[in-house]
Amino acid sequence: MKPRALLFDAYGTLFDVHSVVPKAEFAELSKLWRQKQLEYTWLRSLMDRYVDFWDITHAALLSAAGQLQIRLTDTQRDALMQAYLAPAAFPDAKPALEALRGFAPLAILSNGSPRMLEAMIAHNAFESYFAAVISADRVKIYKPSPRVYALGPETLGIPASEILFVSSNVWDAAGAKAFGYRVCWCNRSSSPPDPPDFTPDLTVQSLEEIPALFC
Amino acid sequence: MKPRALLFDAYGTLFDVHSVVPKAEFAELSKLWRQKQLEYTWLRSLMDRYVDFWDITHAALLSAAGQLQIRLTDTQRDALMQAYLAPAAFPDAKPALEALRGFAPLAILSNGSPRMLEAMIAHNAFESYFAAVISADRVKIYKPSPRVYALGPETLGIPASEILFVSSNVWDAAGAKAFGYRVCWCNRSSSPPDPPDFTPDLTVQSLEEIPALFC
Repeated sequence: MKPRALLFDAYGTLFDVHSVVPKAEFAELSKLWRQKQLEYTWLRSLMDRYVDFWDITHAALLSAAGQLQIRLTDTQRDALMQAYLAPAAFPDAKPALEALRGFAPLAILSNGSPRMLEAMIAHNAFESYFAAVISADRVKIYKPSPRVYALGPETLGIPASEILFVSSNVWDAAGAKAFGYRVCWCNRSSSPPDPPDFTPDLTVQSLEEIPALFC
Repeated sequence: MKPRALLFDAYGTLFDVHSVVPKAEFAELSKLWRQKQLEYTWLRSLMDRYVDFWDITHAALLSAAGQLQIRLTDTQRDALMQAYLAPAAFPDAKPALEALRGFAPLAILSNGSPRMLEAMIAHNAFESYFAAVISADRVKIYKPSPRVYALGPETLGIPASEILFVSSNVWDAAGAKAFGYRVCWCNRSSSPPDPPDFTPDLTVQSLEEIPALFC
């Protein structure tokens, strides 16, 4: 069945968080930074101690650098945080959005703060693709809380079961599925599902496979 | 001020989860198993999709083995799960509990299911130390949800601010502090606080340091 809208995750799905730390010597930092960032969103959500995604990302950078005993100067730290406002899009994002734009309304549902999302979308000149850019900041909790996923149907005026939710983050795809979306997991790295019993409605290896499924 | 009760975390604080996978070749498995176990508790809690800690631990083992491309036979998998019922206590646990038992009521507050906690405590002959063994299973959500931490004061009949909550898991210590406990972080590995701005009331490197603080 043709979905009435497509709702995309941003970080890790359309935009490559690891593009922010391009130097090979910082690959481990980039990985741990992302892991800490996610952990902090989950822990603070469970503790009901929301701070916005910019503050989460900053604390995660300090934590990751500390754990790896990497001494960042203030200048380096500020440069990494500024780079987080302008991550590169994955190469398959633009062609997929271009092919899908006439097919159904496209939107973003992201943990990112409104300012971060705006900057990232502008940096990649993606403004014209999206009917809505929805931030978890509206409800002051992070994915996979159902309160975040509820923002999609509310904003788009379409039931979750008729929206295709697209994410490369398998835990996000699983959270969206549990909420009631139809879910497409963009599994670029051919990873096993995690949790092992998660079964998305659709699995693709590249966003560019999505248009052919419906158009 | 002397605490009116001491409430201990179990896994990673009193009992060594990595003792379950003793062979050096499985060290990476043990680490990822634990990481996935925690992730699943956080994610399922946020999704409001509770399953008990035994099921969490089993799914985490499958996920970790899958990601590391370790093929476990059914016998190996069952043996690892059975071993999870009988982890070794850390060497400092018994002397600390022995020294503290006359000082104030001692209790456990753990994510573990009642069956897992009972087995683990019996295996280490720790039954006589604890006035209460409290499982998150009562409220069907995991730490750091305030609903789990609320079980301590409820069960012990003592305000959180007069209970010393002891954990080696820094995120758990931070969650307990946010809830309102006095918190002792047992930082065996001299790690930096995580999140970086977390300041426990007390920090020790061994549980054996605790009695001298009060007794």
